[in-house]
Amino acid sequence: MSTNYNSIEKESSSKRNKRDVGSVFVESFSSSSNKGNNEQASERQLIEAIKLRHEYMERSGNFFSKTTKSFIEKRFVPEQQKCNKSKMNTNTSYNPPEPPPDHWMLNTPLPHYEKIFTLTREDGVYRIKNVLGEYVYEFDKFFLNKTKYLKDYEKIVGIVSDGPLKSLCYRRLCYLQNKFQLYLLRNEQRELHEQKSVRHRDFYNIRKVDTHIHAASSMNQKHLLRFIKRKMKTENDTVVLEKDGKKITMGELFKGLNIEPYDLNVDILDVHAYKNAFHRLDKFNHKYNPIGESTLRKLFVSTDNYVGGKYFAEVLKEVFKELEDSKYQHIEPRLSIYGHKKNEWSKLAKWAIKHDVWSTNSKFLIQIPRLYDIYKEKKLISNFDQLLDNIFTPLFEVTNNPNVDPDLFRFLMQITGIDSVDDESKHEYIQFDKFTPNPNDYVDAENPSYTYYMYYFYSNIAMLNAFRKSRNLNTFSFRLHSGEAGHPHHLIDSFLTAESISHGLLLRKLPVLQYLFYLTKIGISMSPLSNNSLVIPYNRNPLPQFLMKGLNVSLSTDDPLQFHLTKEALMEEYSIAVQVWKLSPTDMCELALNSVRQSGFEDNIKHYWLGPNFKCESALGNDISKTNVPDLRITFRYETLVDELTHIFQNYK
Amino acid sequence: MSTNYNSIEKESSSKRNKRDVGSVFVESFSSSSNKGNNEQASERQLIEAIKLRHEYMERSGNFFSKTTKSFIEKRFVPEQQKCNKSKMNTNTSYNPPEPPPDHWMLNTPLPHYEKIFTLTREDGVYRIKNVLGEYVYEFDKFFLNKTKYLKDYEKIVGIVSDGPLKSLCYRRLCYLQNKFQLYLLRNEQRELHEQKSVRHRDFYNIRKVDTHIHAASSMNQKHLLRFIKRKMKTENDTVVLEKDGKKITMGELFKGLNIEPYDLNVDILDVHAYKNAFHRLDKFNHKYNPIGESTLRKLFVSTDNYVGGKYFAEVLKEVFKELEDSKYQHIEPRLSIYGHKKNEWSKLAKWAIKHDVWSTNSKFLIQIPRLYDIYKEKKLISNFDQLLDNIFTPLFEVTNNPNVDPDLFRFLMQITGIDSVDDESKHEYIQFDKFTPNPNDYVDAENPSYTYYMYYFYSNIAMLNAFRKSRNLNTFSFRLHSGEAGHPHHLIDSFLTAESISHGLLLRKLPVLQYLFYLTKIGISMSPLSNNSLVIPYNRNPLPQFLMKGLNVSLSTDDPLQFHLTKEALMEEYSIAVQVWKLSPTDMCELALNSVRQSGFEDNIKHYWLGPNFKCESALGNDISKTNVPDLRITFRYETLVDELTHIFQNYK
Repeated sequence: MSTNYNSIEKESSSKRNKRDVGSVFVESFSSSSNKGNNEQASERQLIEAIKLRHEYMERSGNFFSKTTKSFIEKRFVPEQQKCNKSKMNTNTSYNPPEPPPDHWMLNTPLPHYEKIFTLTREDGVYRIKNVLGEYVYEFDKFFLNKTKYLKDYEKIVGIVSDGPLKSLCYRRLCYLQNKFQLYLLRNEQRELHEQKSVRHRDFYNIRKVDTHIHAASSMNQKHLLRFIKRKMKTENDTVVLEKDGKKITMGELFKGLNIEPYDLNVDILDVHAYKNAFHRLDKFNHKYNPIGESTLRKLFVSTDNYVGGKYFAEVLKEVFKELEDSKYQHIEPRLSIYGHKKNEWSKLAKWAIKHDVWSTNSKFLIQIPRLYDIYKEKKLISNFDQLLDNIFTPLFEVTNNPNVDPDLFRFLMQITGIDSVDDESKHEYIQFDKFTPNPNDYVDAENPSYTYYMYYFYSNIAMLNAFRKSRNLNTFSFRLHSGEAGHPHHLIDSFLTAESISHGLLLRKLPVLQYLFYLTKIGISMSPLSNNSLVIPYNRNPLPQFLMKGLNVSLSTDDPLQFHLTKEALMEEYSIAVQVWKLSPTDMCELALNSVRQSGFEDNIKHYWLGPNFKCESALGNDISKTNVPDLRITFRYETLVDELTHIFQNYK
Repeated sequence: MSTNYNSIEKESSSKRNKRDVGSVFVESFSSSSNKGNNEQASERQLIEAIKLRHEYMERSGNFFSKTTKSFIEKRFVPEQQKCNKSKMNTNTSYNPPEPPPDHWMLNTPLPHYEKIFTLTREDGVYRIKNVLGEYVYEFDKFFLNKTKYLKDYEKIVGIVSDGPLKSLCYRRLCYLQNKFQLYLLRNEQRELHEQKSVRHRDFYNIRKVDTHIHAASSMNQKHLLRFIKRKMKTENDTVVLEKDGKKITMGELFKGLNIEPYDLNVDILDVHAYKNAFHRLDKFNHKYNPIGESTLRKLFVSTDNYVGGKYFAEVLKEVFKELEDSKYQHIEPRLSIYGHKKNEWSKLAKWAIKHDVWSTNSKFLIQIPRLYDIYKEKKLISNFDQLLDNIFTPLFEVTNNPNVDPDLFRFLMQITGIDSVDDESKHEYIQFDKFTPNPNDYVDAENPSYTYYMYYFYSNIAMLNAFRKSRNLNTFSFRLHSGEAGHPHHLIDSFLTAESISHGLLLRKLPVLQYLFYLTKIGISMSPLSNNSLVIPYNRNPLPQFLMKGLNVSLSTDDPLQFHLTKEALMEEYSIAVQVWKLSPTDMCELALNSVRQSGFEDNIKHYWLGPNFKCESALGNDISKTNVPDLRITFRYETLVDELTHIFQNYK
């Protein structure tokens, strides 16, 4: 397939764009030449924050915008001069080659590592030592100590709360929004024209990734209902659980609930979130229980139960099947690791491989709920360190020596990231400061704060990634639930530690952080239907404003089981957004493009989906014949970002 | 299947309801006992309007609420004492029996009528005479003369504009809305409980009718795209049109447009309405033209073209197939009769029968665009009477003598109603008053007013229905597009002449009329997604307020081709409404129930879908095991209406 532009057209479109929206901004920038010290101080603060994030992303090996980085490194060269657009014209197929059938690599021998290190967990964070008992500098340079994290966190708190900086960022954000609207008034028809001139490609056949979805709620209510009904009929005599030493069959279980297969309907299933879940995340969590019964949740949407997670595997594979049929829709479902048992990882890996829960259209993330207090109360763990031990030890050990748990080793090859989840609105009794006990001394009945979790998760993941990278293994992105409810400062943790976040609604209350998210292109996976049910009405969701300003937002479903009615949850999500916010076809395709970029699918797959230069952030990285996003739009976004960064970095030495 | 309540439960639920919401209203009603003359005058005006509508519905044989009628006729008896609820327990299947394969009754001989009447059109309205040349009283009593219509219209204008009455109705409507919210606060959980106690039934498997959809846009954009692509590939050499005496094949047609099958995408197809259609109904009409080409509209979504409407029939049948697979979703698509040629009806009938465009899940309506001015300009007609002649003559003739056009006779048996469509916002240069020329003298270049059209359509349909009824043939409901844009007074015509309307948005500007629509239970088929694209943003749509107040609203899609993204347009419409307006499962089911009641499906089918007593308007007519609407809700609606009517009719003698 050939692309329908060449570099000459590219230049002209870029110039045209300049002409159209550039002129009114001249004043805005020239005014900055004779500004006072106040503004220079603000710029210094912004740079400081950006550099900090850069440092953290380098440490964990997670994504950081190339454009922004080039400003930090004082080597910004407009991409036009570097990338070779002509490469795009090579006749690459849009579809990646079929993956090898042995995706779990069961027939590939495990790698053998010469060096086996000594692993120690010191104050909750893994450290790697050589045989002499010395820290290995290669890894240890990635170690982040608590004092530094707290200092950095405080620094960002200071920056985010700085009065003059807040005003400046607020104004810049308004400016960005107005600039986009002006751009659109002049260029909307041109964008449509560019889209029409692309053969074959349209919104329906561009790749879209559902960047935030929980595996346990990835099917819609009707799907789960049908599945349960079918199982009630076909596996009536299967023993599905053991209670007080007594084996109970599917038939007996439902008889106990006084339900016949014919009786069951979505009202009884009662997993959909209606208005009574608003501001009730606690109540919402109960919606995961079909018919309000945690037994059924455990039986049907859990990997670890009497039937070995068989049903969950089956229903997930049905979801995958539908995605594969749709071809262009992909998901990144989250599977849970709780951290209350040591063998969770091992069991999960065995479950996935045994049932072959895998699809070309899916990439798993692992979600870790922040439930220390519950495990502590149930006496499953005695201190916070045990939680970290349960979560991270298997990962380090299997990276150190694959033979410890070959299944887990292979399973981890298919995992792209780690997410941290829970109700953010729960009150945090324990703050994280230098007096907070270290994990092995943390025995309080209360949950530690969000920040405490984040520090320990991030520092371990950074170390793990460094370790895995040295062994040529895939690394994990840290992609957090953040800024949905609760204290907006959770977003500060995310700014430092997360590659991308889910929700981010509370950015609307923190202009400085919102502007920093813009400047560093942090991915924000938003789920307005979920938000609408839980925290903010649809028409007040900040997504359209974020998109206008140029933040890196994507659309996701969160929980189709609870929120969606049709069989095509992601399309339903897009449909509502498009209608309520009157998005243009270009907006839709930009959201889809963002979702692919944010996703954890491998580079060699993104290469097929987006084009070979997809890592370029200007229009040179855009292949409209694959993304259906006009170069005009990408150029506008890129040049606007460069303008903002130029503005900020002009006095940077 | 058995229903899960009995009359004792019914009574208790009804009492419970009274107790819960009734007490606060006592004052409201007792206060009315010592009110002034002003309020009595208002009541008289309301009664006058209700009686007028009753008279008009009697004339056309269209639906009028039984409850309201019983107040007019001073014989109101609460339904509890009349209906026999026990009848509901008979084990009726939910699914109607399969219809006979010969749905067009091609194998049934045409009826032979002894009396063949003389038909004359006098001043635009058909009159029926016997062999002696005398008006036949049996029919002629249904004749509506222009003077009376103008007088009645003026009367309603006066009532709708009356200051004190406006205040009263506005307050009653606020009261209705608050009463519902209060009811909901007390009973929402009970409603859910009632729904959960019903076996098997839920929102997914109750019947829903898309009460307002245009056949030419009943498929979504992706569907039409695929269809066109397929035809480009498989029928490349088929001659599809003749231009200047030259036959043009499909391949040549698209070659002329410079389009290959592979190239085509939804952006090029360009039938979707994005924000640039807002307040541009004129522009919107162009969206019916694929790739902006009226030739393609004519080829693919028209019944009358060189290929005899073959493609349109095929694509419609694909739509039907999907509906049949969904089982519970039904549509009432509109087919067009323009009135610029005499043989339109005949051709349409032949098209439908030849291609067997029929489905158990569909019932056709006929839409008549108000385009006199265009035909006049193109010299297709010379006066308004010719338009009426083209539209109504075939209908009267074939009713008089089926042998005139057996196909049309059979086709009409499958038609349930007549709709009038066009851009309401076009300025009306010509008002309708006693000086307006009669149809045969109407030769102006400008279109006559909405009211003028309505009078001539309604009076002819009333006469036609009387005629058809006397011959035991099906009659037509008059279901208008009204109150979407333009002058709100179009709704006055609808109040007098229409069985139900599509849109009705402007009722929010006319409190008196809105209250009258409530009291007479006029069906309002609303399409908020369509409105969102064309006239009013989604979150300002009055649908949720109308529903709260208890107006008879249903949800419909209008044009999936232009507005919807997923394959399930009606579910998408529901999904967005549910999410944005936070509707409860009961609200959803009530909307679906309203849609079935408003639809033109035969009584014997509704009998299966809703239960044998479906014509009862109280909870006695409700079978929750079929409708999934709790009796509690129906009782609340019924008792609230009865309370309002009692209030108004208390001094009625």
